[in-house]
Parts: sequence; C-alpha cells; structure tokens
Amino acid sequence: MTRSDNLPPGLEDFCLETAWKAAAVILPFFRSGLQAENKNAATGADWDPVTAADRAAERVIRTEIEARFPDHGIIGEEFPEKKTDSPYQWVIDPIDGTRAFLCGLPVWGTLIGLLRDGAPVFGAMSQAYNEEIFIGDCETAFLYRRGEKTKLGTRETVDLKTATGLSTCPDLFSDEDREGFDLIRRSVKNIRYGTDCYGYAMLAAGCADFVMESGLNLYDIAPLIPIIRGAGGVVSDWNGDESATSGRILAAGNRMLHQALLVRLKGGADD
Amino acid sequence: MTRSDNLPPGLEDFCLETAWKAAAVILPFFRSGLQAENKNAATGADWDPVTAADRAAERVIRTEIEARFPDHGIIGEEFPEKKTDSPYQWVIDPIDGTRAFLCGLPVWGTLIGLLRDGAPVFGAMSQAYNEEIFIGDCETAFLYRRGEKTKLGTRETVDLKTATGLSTCPDLFSDEDREGFDLIRRSVKNIRYGTDCYGYAMLAAGCADFVMESGLNLYDIAPLIPIIRGAGGVVSDWNGDESATSGRILAAGNRMLHQALLVRLKGGADD
Repeated sequence: MTRSDNLPPGLEDFCLETAWKAAAVILPFFRSGLQAENKNAATGADWDPVTAADRAAERVIRTEIEARFPDHGIIGEEFPEKKTDSPYQWVIDPIDGTRAFLCGLPVWGTLIGLLRDGAPVFGAMSQAYNEEIFIGDCETAFLYRRGEKTKLGTRETVDLKTATGLSTCPDLFSDEDREGFDLIRRSVKNIRYGTDCYGYAMLAAGCADFVMESGLNLYDIAPLIPIIRGAGGVVSDWNGDESATSGRILAAGNRMLHQALLVRLKGGADD
Repeated sequence: MTRSDNLPPGLEDFCLETAWKAAAVILPFFRSGLQAENKNAATGADWDPVTAADRAAERVIRTEIEARFPDHGIIGEEFPEKKTDSPYQWVIDPIDGTRAFLCGLPVWGTLIGLLRDGAPVFGAMSQAYNEEIFIGDCETAFLYRRGEKTKLGTRETVDLKTATGLSTCPDLFSDEDREGFDLIRRSVKNIRYGTDCYGYAMLAAGCADFVMESGLNLYDIAPLIPIIRGAGGVVSDWNGDESATSGRILAAGNRMLHQALLVRLKGGADD
C-alpha cells in the first residue's frame, strides 16, 4: 500500500494472515451438507452451520486483533462491541452473504475493516473458496491470489444506458426502496443479481459499473469502502452522503456515473 | 462412473481433459478488463471478449471430439452443426452464463454433454476459475477438484415451505412465465438469483432444492441433465415432460418435491 498518512503499520500483512486463519475455520462448514444431507430426511432444527461458522471465524479474527492491536475497539456481528479510547475500531463480518454460503455459491466473503474516528480507512474482503483477498486503503486497492498481487481499478463508464449494475436480490428491498431501485434498473443496460459483498469487489475490479442495495448494516459495507475508493470508485448512501451510514448504498466506478445515478434516483432527467 | 450400459469408454477422462484444455483458452479472457479498462474512456465496439473466448473454446472442444470420436455428431453454440449417422451427438456451450462471465462472477461454466438417440447420457460442467468439474452419467455424479473426487447427492427436502430455489434472473422470464415463477416463488422459503449453470451444479451437490428457469436452449441444459439425474435429482419442463426440450426447465432434488412444484405450478393446492 502507498497510503501517505500514518495508519498503524503492517495492516496489509495482518489482514492477509487473519483472513487465511478465518478461512481455515469457515471452509469446513462450506457445502458441509454435500454428503450428509442425502441421508437425512430433513434438516434438523439445531443444524445452523452459518451461525457456527460465523461465531468460530469471528472469534479467530477477534483473537488476532486483540493480540496485535490490544487498544483498538471491535464491532462484530456475533459478539458484543469492545469499546476502547482508541480512535481505531475494527469492523468484522465473518460471513457476508449467508444465503450464498448456504447455497454453496462462492460469492460470500469475510469482511475485516478498520475505522478511524468512525470513518473507514482500511478494508479486506476474502473469498476463501476461490482463494481471493481484496484489500484497499482508500488510495489503492489490490487483489491477492495465489502469490499474485493485481492492482484494482474501476471502469470509466459514465452513461447510464451502457452501465451494468449489481445487486443481491430485488426481493430484499422495501416497497419504497424498490421504487428507487426500479427507476435505476429501467435506466441502465443490465442488472445482475446474487452478488453480496462479491459485487463490490467486482466493481473495484472494473467488471461492473455500480452496485445498488439497501438494508445494509455497518459491518456489511464499512470494510468494503476502502477497497472501492482505493480502486477509484465512489460510495455514498442514496442521497449522496458519503458517510454511507443509512444502509442504502450506491457505489459506482467513478464520480460522473455516481452523480448520474443520484440524479436519476431523484427522478431527474439524465440525457 | 458405474454406468451399466455400454457408453463409449473413457468418457470421464475425456471430459476432464477437454474441459481443462477449454479452461486454458477461456481464462485469459476472464476479467481481462481488470487493468486495461481503467485507461480507456469507453469499451470499444469491437471488444467482445465473450464471443472471442466462446469461439476459441468451442474450437478446442470440437477438435478434441473430432480426434477421439470422429463419427459422432456435434451441436455447439458458435459453429454449424456436424451431422453424422452415429446415434451419439455432442452438445457444447463453451461459456454458459455470459453475463456472469462479463461481471467477473465465478458462476459461469463450460458445458460438454453427450446425447444418444437425442437423450442426454453423459455431461460435464466446469467452472475453470474455481478449478471445479462436475460430471454425471444419469446414474452417478461427482465433483472433481484439485485431485479430489466427491460424490454428489441431492437433498431430500419435500415440503415447498422449506425449499430453497435458484434461478438466474427474474427479469428474464416472459410475462406468462413470470406468472408461473412468481407462483412458485411465493410458495417456497427462499429464492436465490444469479446462478446460471452453477445453480444446477449446486442442486446436484445438495446445496439447494430446485432450479426453475425458462428460455433455455438445448446446449444450456442437455449437458447438465446427466449430472442432476446422476446425483438423484429430477429434471423436466414445466409440464413434467422429462425430455425437457421446451426451454422451460424445472429441476428438483427428488421426485416428491418435483411433483409438488408441478402441482403448484398448475395452480393446485399442495398442503
């Protein structure tokens, strides 16, 4: 990383190592029904592999953070918040994309992000099955895979009519949010569903032009923001607020497309 | 494979080798915009990586088939049909899931299937980026990955209310087909989108309960049928016709769930 201001040293290696440790805990749960499921007439009510995998992975990540950065705060999905006086807080989602995980689809991810004074400054998303880790620090972003490190860069598409967007599921929107989403959907070339956190990684990799979702929690998006921004992208809520805390997320490959999406979302013309 | 009737020998090894040769041709095109895209203001009209990758891969697969099974017929997406007097015909889709491929999402696949007298008897689906090859012969089905061979088996979910279904995109249905799909969608626990051929592989792997789509071509589904049936699943069109030639596909993990889906699709009760 080439970030000029003084983040804690060694964040990149720390996130790579921690993501692999989490992967080792999660992967045995992935597709774990592959053999057993056929023998059992019904899934037992007690069998909740994602929660078990989630908890085990979050525990590993918390242990690593507490050993290396004992004064930092931690916000995770599965355990109570650890509050400290440090300006730094870690944000963890051990498995983002629970439904994808349960369906065996390799688009879920482990999210590990760092906030400073509440703002995302560093983030990692790993897709353990594919051996991919996406890392960004708001200035640059990289994909690490099998010893290779590839710089990520967003696309320069600026015209809604030629843009391809990603979203996890059209049925997840509230009625009001669905109206806004449909306004965008009808204005662009193509929407692809089923993407979860992986969609933001593909936006950063220049494989899609924008991502639009709602109902996200802090830990669903905060770790991804430094990756998107590091690759040249723009992230805000649906009103353009870049603190992106409302759960309605609009992420685009560049500022012009982001602006065009915001204008269209407010019902304005964009031709 | 343990198939009792006399298919041509060596199909399994042939499909594994051919799928890897196709993968070597396709993978350089996958996410090929990753670096270049950021430097170009717009995607040039001539740049069509999927068609180029499609053609190159289909050429490789055809060459392998013609060398090994010179008297067999070949039906592919990109080149004219090769007609012969043989009861055997190969069906090829070099890249199923074009939109997924273009968005960098690892759920596209290379489909290679064999028909005998028009019926699917052997099929392979490879996801080259994940190094996965799913193979089936209507009696058994396996996932090959990194030297490991795992037997596939479908789930035994029989109740619509607890079933998870997969489909590529709700916007792809015609108005009439969308009505049928929505009838099913509202009857089941959960629908996951964005799956293409990978959804059928996950059905075979016991990670989902059914797949429902329409508008499929012969080469989109024929190579997948021996994998689904080999894992214990049932495939038909939306009327229950197991020749599945109408393009409307309903694939389920077992006969009881398949029947319940057909009954519901006809508007009947299922409680």
